[in-house]
Amino acid sequence: MVESFGVRLQELITERGPLCIGVDPSATVLEQWGRRDDVEGLEFAALSIVEAAIGTAVAVKPQVAFFERFGSAGYRILERVIREARDASLVVVADAKRGDIGSSVEGYAQAWLTDGSPLAVDALTAHPYLGVGSLAPLVRAAQGSGRGLFVLAATSNAEGREVQGAIVDGERSVEVAVLGAIAALNAGAESLGAIGAVIGATRDRPDFDLTRLQGPILVPGVGAQGATPERVRRLFGGVPRASVLVNVARSILERGPDRRAVHDAARRWRDEISDALP
Amino acid sequence: MVESFGVRLQELITERGPLCIGVDPSATVLEQWGRRDDVEGLEFAALSIVEAAIGTAVAVKPQVAFFERFGSAGYRILERVIREARDASLVVVADAKRGDIGSSVEGYAQAWLTDGSPLAVDALTAHPYLGVGSLAPLVRAAQGSGRGLFVLAATSNAEGREVQGAIVDGERSVEVAVLGAIAALNAGAESLGAIGAVIGATRDRPDFDLTRLQGPILVPGVGAQGATPERVRRLFGGVPRASVLVNVARSILERGPDRRAVHDAARRWRDEISDALP
Repeated sequence: MVESFGVRLQELITERGPLCIGVDPSATVLEQWGRRDDVEGLEFAALSIVEAAIGTAVAVKPQVAFFERFGSAGYRILERVIREARDASLVVVADAKRGDIGSSVEGYAQAWLTDGSPLAVDALTAHPYLGVGSLAPLVRAAQGSGRGLFVLAATSNAEGREVQGAIVDGERSVEVAVLGAIAALNAGAESLGAIGAVIGATRDRPDFDLTRLQGPILVPGVGAQGATPERVRRLFGGVPRASVLVNVARSILERGPDRRAVHDAARRWRDEISDALP
Repeated sequence: MVESFGVRLQELITERGPLCIGVDPSATVLEQWGRRDDVEGLEFAALSIVEAAIGTAVAVKPQVAFFERFGSAGYRILERVIREARDASLVVVADAKRGDIGSSVEGYAQAWLTDGSPLAVDALTAHPYLGVGSLAPLVRAAQGSGRGLFVLAATSNAEGREVQGAIVDGERSVEVAVLGAIAALNAGAESLGAIGAVIGATRDRPDFDLTRLQGPILVPGVGAQGATPERVRRLFGGVPRASVLVNVARSILERGPDRRAVHDAARRWRDEISDALP
């Protein structure tokens, strides 16, 4: 049996700290870095971010939208980013937010969570609007290959409240139902399973005992988006040590293009977050 | 001011009928068609489907998952499919189900709904788990360029019920809230606006007056997935004529690889659906 993604991630976080750096080579970042908004600019920025993550972060999270802007040429750069990051032993979480039904989800599982695919990563983010159950092929692919899946549960943005706060069966919110479904998928895992949740740091703690999740938690929203490491501690105090992966992007990238400055910012964020999480 | 996607689609459906063919070159279809499961097989199958749509369908809906299986090489084929379909005056709806926040949604808008992008299509499907409001950059890009956005509202799959049937503010379901948000985005449109809804055909009619939507409706689930044209008529009777775009994939593709047989099946489905819709 393969070691679960959750267990592997926990070991790596214990060694290297909980920082995930967002590989977000947006038009804004390219402009700040004095690069043209083209495929060469994309490649330079994306690979520089991966370089800054080596020795400072445990993981990188490429935001697929910024590569898709350039179509297949952008995807070629994404493949290179994935390859170089994995060669450097960084955990790669593709922030693609996929979600569909049937053979389409099977297609996504083959694309992102299957050995030999040019886009194969360590973990993928996914949408549960069609039900966590609809993601079954991704769940199976993750569990079977030592990879992970982070399902969007409780996000930071205000517009998400209407759907995520709606009430299921008169008793629990959608986000709590999603967290419960994730917990069910991890049931029986030795410690942490393969299926994780995305929970934004700029919001209140969901009304769910997160120690029941038995899966890793991906936390966006720290830094420029508003949340502090101290807030992360308050939100996730009590969950298993090293099961929380904290993503920071803008607050690190805005130090570029100077490599030293980006690297230093990444180290400072890692240390601040590590110190805040007990 | 640009003509809205809804108005343009309605004119085209009136001319050519309501059939959209799913460009779904899955591993299963490639096998049925006696092709290897590789990029060449993908290209052959995808372009054959586009060819079958010319003269029979008003639109094609490439399922992006089946292209993403092959990474950037698959995306190159997707770009060719989009180009050839648009050159043949077919409406192209990319079934990518994107959804994110902030600059990432902006990135998706640049990828799919902006002139000059290699992936520019007529319309894109999107996920509302982060709130319909989070899709604002896609909405703006669609409205500003005569393109469309189809937001997942009420899907056919059973696993989707928990989220989509959850109750917002004690009074309406998530799917009804999503349909209401779409209607609000189309308010003020002369007849049909740019923002559409995805409503599965194998389910009950949502508890929402669909004449208020003022946007096109994309309907999957017909054919092999279980719904009949007669069922589509019952679900959508009363909405403006020619605002319903009905997707059929498997029931047409399973006639391949014989081109004549695929073409004939497409024409039969178009006629059956046209006859059923008044």
